[in-house]
Amino acid sequence: MAARLDDPYGAFCKDSDAYLEGASEGPLAGLTFAAKDIFDIAGHVTGGGNPDWKAAQPPAAKTAPHVARLVEAGATMVGKTITDEITRGILGENAHYGTPINPRALGRVAGGSSSGSASAVAGGLVDFALGSDTGGSVRVPASFCGLYGMRTTHGRLSLDGMLPQAESYDTVGWFARDAALFGRVADVMFGTDLMDKTPTRMIVAEDAFEVADEAVVEVLQKPIETVGNRIGTVETDRLSPNGFDEWRQVQQMLQSREAWETVRDWVDRCNPRFAYDVAMRLAGAAEITDEIVSAMCAQRDAVRAHMAEILTPGTVICLPTTPFPAPEAGLPQSQMWERRQRIITLTCLGGMLGAPQINLPLAELNGLPVGLSFLGLPGSDELLAGFARALSR
Amino acid sequence: MAARLDDPYGAFCKDSDAYLEGASEGPLAGLTFAAKDIFDIAGHVTGGGNPDWKAAQPPAAKTAPHVARLVEAGATMVGKTITDEITRGILGENAHYGTPINPRALGRVAGGSSSGSASAVAGGLVDFALGSDTGGSVRVPASFCGLYGMRTTHGRLSLDGMLPQAESYDTVGWFARDAALFGRVADVMFGTDLMDKTPTRMIVAEDAFEVADEAVVEVLQKPIETVGNRIGTVETDRLSPNGFDEWRQVQQMLQSREAWETVRDWVDRCNPRFAYDVAMRLAGAAEITDEIVSAMCAQRDAVRAHMAEILTPGTVICLPTTPFPAPEAGLPQSQMWERRQRIITLTCLGGMLGAPQINLPLAELNGLPVGLSFLGLPGSDELLAGFARALSR
Repeated sequence: MAARLDDPYGAFCKDSDAYLEGASEGPLAGLTFAAKDIFDIAGHVTGGGNPDWKAAQPPAAKTAPHVARLVEAGATMVGKTITDEITRGILGENAHYGTPINPRALGRVAGGSSSGSASAVAGGLVDFALGSDTGGSVRVPASFCGLYGMRTTHGRLSLDGMLPQAESYDTVGWFARDAALFGRVADVMFGTDLMDKTPTRMIVAEDAFEVADEAVVEVLQKPIETVGNRIGTVETDRLSPNGFDEWRQVQQMLQSREAWETVRDWVDRCNPRFAYDVAMRLAGAAEITDEIVSAMCAQRDAVRAHMAEILTPGTVICLPTTPFPAPEAGLPQSQMWERRQRIITLTCLGGMLGAPQINLPLAELNGLPVGLSFLGLPGSDELLAGFARALSR
Repeated sequence: MAARLDDPYGAFCKDSDAYLEGASEGPLAGLTFAAKDIFDIAGHVTGGGNPDWKAAQPPAAKTAPHVARLVEAGATMVGKTITDEITRGILGENAHYGTPINPRALGRVAGGSSSGSASAVAGGLVDFALGSDTGGSVRVPASFCGLYGMRTTHGRLSLDGMLPQAESYDTVGWFARDAALFGRVADVMFGTDLMDKTPTRMIVAEDAFEVADEAVVEVLQKPIETVGNRIGTVETDRLSPNGFDEWRQVQQMLQSREAWETVRDWVDRCNPRFAYDVAMRLAGAAEITDEIVSAMCAQRDAVRAHMAEILTPGTVICLPTTPFPAPEAGLPQSQMWERRQRIITLTCLGGMLGAPQINLPLAELNGLPVGLSFLGLPGSDELLAGFARALSR
C-alpha cells in the first residue's frame, strides 16, 4: 500500500483502505492500479465523492467485475481515488474531499469527475487507473493531465458494481501514461488480443476546432498532420448543422435529468450536503419535464441519424478533447461555469453518439498538456486503442 | 460556562467558546443567556450555521450592540447557539451541525432558524436567548418549544453586528420561558420601562385559523376566549381577500431574492456546501428577475395599504403562530417542504407588514406546545410584550 500512503497529489480517498493484491501471474502481473471511488470493492463502502452518500450506504457485497478482472490479470488495486461528488463534475474540484492535484499542471485542476484516477496515474503513483465517463469524465482529465484515456462505447462494457449517474450515458474507461500499457489494459478490459490498427479515413471536425482556443488549435496542428499522414485519407468537415451548442444542450438536459432520477429518492430522504454548483444543477434538472425529455430524445435521434451518414466503419473523427488546457483551481463559479460549458460543447459528441473516444496526449501549450481526440463508430473501441498503440511505435 | 458544557440538547455551537461575563449589577444581573450564532462576539468568528461561511470569515472585531447591552445589564452570555445555515430554514434542521433537540417535544424539530436559542431556553440551559426573525425564525421555534418569543417591528432595533439574511425583513427577537422575564429583557432591548398594557381591540383572523390543523384551532379556543375577555372588544374578520397563499408567495419571492443577493458573491467565490434544500432554494432565488421583484413589491404595498385600514392603533390581530405543533425530525424533504409552506402561509404576515408579533405558549396538543400569536401595528412592540406580561399575572 506504499503508493496509497505516499500520496502527494491528494488523489486517493483518505478514508478508505481498500486494497486488492493482484494475482501472481497474468498479463498485468506486477502492475498497480487505482479505482475511482464509484467501483464497488467487497467489504468497503463505495463513497461516490459525497460523505452523506457514503454514510447512507452499506459496504459493497461484491467487487465490481472490472476491478476483479484486472486483479485476476495480475494488477494490484492499491486504493480508491477521489471523484467529483456523485460524478457530477467535469473539473475535478470536490468540496468535501479536496481537489486532486494535477501533477502535470500545478495549481490547475486535474479535470473530473475521474480526477483522482487521472492525478494518480499522471503523478506516477500507479501504472493505470479506472474511471468512468458519462459526459466527459475520463476524456477531460486525460486531456488536462496528459494521459491516454478512453470513453468506451456506451453499453459495450458492463457497469455492474459501479455507482450509476445517467444510465443512457454512463461508460467505463481507464487512464495510462503510455499507449503500450494502455493497450495491455484494453486487452484485459475487452477480453481480446488488441492488434495495432489504423483507421481508413480521418475527418477533421472543423466546427469542433472552432470551439477550442486558437492557441490550442495551433499546438494540435502538428499531431494532426502526423496522424493524418499515417491514415492517408484526411477530410475536413463540419459535423453539426446548427452548431455544437445545440448538441451540448441536448446532452446536458438528458444527462442531468437522468442523474436527478438516479439520486432523487436519496436526496428526498437524506437532504444531503452538496457543493452549491452540484446542488444547483440537480435542482435545475428536477425542473426538466417529460415533454422536454421527449423533445431532446428526438433531437438526439436526429443527431445520431445525421452522424451515421458521416461516421462510417473505419472512419475516425479528429477533434480537440478540451477547448483549453486545465484551468486554474479555485476560480469563482461563474468563471468555472463558462469553462464547463465550453468543455461540454466538445465532450457532448461522445455521449450524443454513444461512441468511443480516446484522448492522445500529443500536445502541450506553455507546458500544459492538452489532448487530441479520436472518436469512432460505436463498437470501434479496439480500433481506437489499437491505433493509439500503433501511433506510439 | 457550565451551561454550555452541559448541553444535552445539542443547542450550542460546539466549535465556539464565546463567553461574556455579565456586569455585576443591572436589571438582568445573575441571569444567563445565549446568542444565535449570527451575533458577532468580538474575537470570535460568527459561524452562521455553515462551516464554509465560517471558514471564510475573520473573527468579529466588535460585539453586536444587543449582546453588549444585555451583558452590561448584568446577563452572562454563556455561548453561541446553532442556527439553520445562513438562517435559511424554518424547521431547525442543520445538516452540518446537527438538529437541536426540542426539549418540549422529543423526536421533533425545535423549529428554526433560531433553533439552538429556543432549544437552550426550553431546556432550561439559559434564562433567555437572542434570535432573529426574517420569515418566522423566532416565532416558529417559540411555538414549537412552548416559549415566549417575539419578532420586533422591522427597523425598530438595530441589526448591527448581525449576519444579515434579507434586509427588508430581518429583525431581532428573543425567547424566554415566562412573560415576566421576557418583559425584563424587553425593557433592556427597547431601553424603556415596559408597563403592563392591554390592547383595545382584538381581531381574530378567521382565514389564518383556516390554515391551521383543526385540532390546533380547537386547543387555541380557550386561550383566545381568555384573552378576548381581557381585551373586551373582539371581532372576527378575514384579512386576505385572495387568501394567504398569495401573501406567502410574495414574502417568499422577495425574501429569497434578497437572501440570494446577500450571499451570491460568497457563493460564486467559494462554491460552499449546503444541504440540498438550502441550495435548491438559493438556486431558485437566483432565477427571480427584477421584473418579478417589482411586481411583488407592488403587491406587498397593496397588502400594507389594505391592512392599514384594519390594523389601527390599539388593535391586535390574533392568529395561530404555526398551523401545527413541531413536526417529527428527519422527515423526507418532500414532506418537510409541504409543512414549511404551510408554516410560512401564517408567518408571512409579520414580514409582509413589517409588524411585531409575539408568540404566547398558551396551548398544547397531545402534550406538544403550539402557540397563539398577537400581531400589532408596526411600532407597537411594547404593547405586545406588555400585554403578554399583563396576561400572565
